[in-house]
Amino acid sequence: MRGKTISSKRFSSILSPIGEELRQVEARMGEALITDEEPLTAILRSLFISGGKRLRPALTILASKFRQSEGSKVVALAAAVEMLHTATLVHDDMIDNSLMRRGNPTLNAAWDDRVVVLVGDYLFARAAALAAETANPRIISLFAKTLMLISSSELREALSIAQPNREDYYWRISRKTASLFAAATEGGALLSEAAEEEVQALRSYGYNLGMAFQIMDDILDFTGDEEELGKPIGSDLLQGVITLPVLYFLEGNPDWGSVERVLRGGEEREELIHSLVARIKGSGALRSSQAEAQGFTEKAKEGLAVLPANEYRQVMLELADYLMVRRI
Amino acid sequence: MRGKTISSKRFSSILSPIGEELRQVEARMGEALITDEEPLTAILRSLFISGGKRLRPALTILASKFRQSEGSKVVALAAAVEMLHTATLVHDDMIDNSLMRRGNPTLNAAWDDRVVVLVGDYLFARAAALAAETANPRIISLFAKTLMLISSSELREALSIAQPNREDYYWRISRKTASLFAAATEGGALLSEAAEEEVQALRSYGYNLGMAFQIMDDILDFTGDEEELGKPIGSDLLQGVITLPVLYFLEGNPDWGSVERVLRGGEEREELIHSLVARIKGSGALRSSQAEAQGFTEKAKEGLAVLPANEYRQVMLELADYLMVRRI
Repeated sequence: MRGKTISSKRFSSILSPIGEELRQVEARMGEALITDEEPLTAILRSLFISGGKRLRPALTILASKFRQSEGSKVVALAAAVEMLHTATLVHDDMIDNSLMRRGNPTLNAAWDDRVVVLVGDYLFARAAALAAETANPRIISLFAKTLMLISSSELREALSIAQPNREDYYWRISRKTASLFAAATEGGALLSEAAEEEVQALRSYGYNLGMAFQIMDDILDFTGDEEELGKPIGSDLLQGVITLPVLYFLEGNPDWGSVERVLRGGEEREELIHSLVARIKGSGALRSSQAEAQGFTEKAKEGLAVLPANEYRQVMLELADYLMVRRI
Repeated sequence: MRGKTISSKRFSSILSPIGEELRQVEARMGEALITDEEPLTAILRSLFISGGKRLRPALTILASKFRQSEGSKVVALAAAVEMLHTATLVHDDMIDNSLMRRGNPTLNAAWDDRVVVLVGDYLFARAAALAAETANPRIISLFAKTLMLISSSELREALSIAQPNREDYYWRISRKTASLFAAATEGGALLSEAAEEEVQALRSYGYNLGMAFQIMDDILDFTGDEEELGKPIGSDLLQGVITLPVLYFLEGNPDWGSVERVLRGGEEREELIHSLVARIKGSGALRSSQAEAQGFTEKAKEGLAVLPANEYRQVMLELADYLMVRRI
C-alpha cells in the first residue's frame, strides 16, 4: 500500500486542512529513522521515501482535532501508526516473497530474509518507542494489542485455519486492516480532551472505514488496472487468499472446483485465473461486495454525528466517500 | 538459551528467595499466551514449556526488591522481558535456520518461515502489551528502545558491517545481550520506590552482568560439552560470527587465513574447525576472555554497594559469581 496508492490530487485536496500536520509527520519519521549505521538508515528511509498516501496518520491527526490536543504527541503517534503499518508490510512481503509493491521494488527484492526480518523488527520497535512518546498507557496498550490482532489474523492464514466463508472473512479483515484504522482514530481522540463517547465514535469511524477500505481493496484486485495497481489482476487468489468477491461468487455459483484449481497452483493457473476473474466480474459478486463496503462507509459516517460539525468532520465525511470511488 | 541452560540445582537454590515470584511469572506467561486460536496457543506454549532458566525475569524481580513495589506490575514486566527475549530467539532461529536450540527442536524445525516470522511478531506485541501493564511510560520506552538496540546490532551482522576487532565486539554484545539485562534490572528498580541513584546502580549491575554473561557464552562455545550445549563446538565460527576468544587468538597469532577459511564455509570447514578450535584453546585466548568477563562481573558486584544490604543483594552477588562458573 505504499507508492502512488490513491495519492491523487483529489485525495491531497481533501486532506489539505491537515497538510501542515502531515508534513510534520514526514519530518518526524525522517528523524526517527536516523540510526548510527549509515546503511541501515538508508534502508529504512527507502521504505518511506516513495511517499504513499499516509492515510492512517491522517486519521490520527483528524481524530485529534475535535478537542484541545498536544500537537507533538499527535504527530509522534501518527508517525508510529505509519511505521507499524510499514513494518507489517515488510514482513508480509518477505512471507509472500513479493518483489514489487504498488510499482516499487520491495525490500525483499534487494536483501536476504535475514535483513528483511530484522528491519521489520527494528521498525516495530521504533514504532513502539514513538507511541511511548505519548506517555499515555492506554494508547500504548492499544498499539501493542493492535499488532497482536494483525499478526494473529495473518497466522490464521499461515496455519491454514481460515475458513472460506463470509464470517471468517470479516473476522480476518477486522483484525488485519480495521484494527489499525480504529487504533489510529482512537489514539488521536485519546490525545485530545474528547469525551469517552466521542472517543468511541471516532474509534467506530476508523473501524468501519477500515472495513470498507479493505473490501474495496479486495474488489480492486478484480477491477483495477494492473499497471496502476502494480500487481496482476486476481493476485489475491493467486496467493491463495479468498476474498469477499470470491465468496459471493461461490454463494451464487457453487463451483468450488474452479476456485480450488487456481488456489492449488501449478502451470494451468495462469490460464484458469483469467476465465475465473471474468466469471466473477460477470456475476453479481462485485456489486454485492461493493454494497457491503458502502454499508460500512455509511456506518462510519453516521457515527460522526455526535461530534462537533467542524471542518475536520467534513474532511472525514469526504474521505469516507472518496475511498469508495478510488481507482488505486 | 531455552531448555536446560544452567537450570542446575545450584542456580535454583540461589534464586530460592524469589521462587514464589518466579512461579507467578510462569503463571502470568501461561495466561498471556492464551489466544482464541487453539493451534496458535499450542505453538506459543511450546516455546515456554521447556522451562529454561528465566534469568532475565529473575533480574527484574530482584531489582524491584530493595524498595516498596507493586508485585503484579513487577510480575507483568518480568514476563514481558522473558517474552521479548523469546521473540528475538524465534526470529534468530529462523534467520540462522537453526533446527535445535539447547537440545530442543526450534519452531523453525516444525513450521515454515511464514509461521515463524508471525509468531515472533505476535510475541513482540504480546511482550509490549505486558510491559504496557506497568503504565509507566519510562519503562515502556526503555522496553521499545531495547528491542531497537537488539535488532540493530543483529542488522550490523546481517549487513556484514561488523568489524573483527574487540571494540566492535563489545559494541555488539552490549546491544545484543547486555541491553536487555540492563532493561530488566532498570525496569524492576523503576517499579519500586528506588531513588534514581539506586536505579542507576541496578541498571549498571544488569548491564555488566549481561556483558560477562555473553563473554562466558562465547567461551563456552569453545569449552562446553556438545551434548550439554545442544550444539557443536565452534558453532559461532561455523555461523560466521567472530567472538572474543577468536579476536584474542588473532591478536596473539595473526593467522587470519585459518579463520577466514572456516568463515568462508565449504566442505573442508568441518575439518578445519577442529584444528582451529584446538589452537584457540591452546592459546591464551580463553584465559584473556575469561579475565574480561571477570572484570565485568566485578563491576556488576561493586555497583551494588549503594543498595541496602538485604538478602536480595546477597542473591545478586551470588548470581554474578555463579554465572562465571556455569558449564552450560
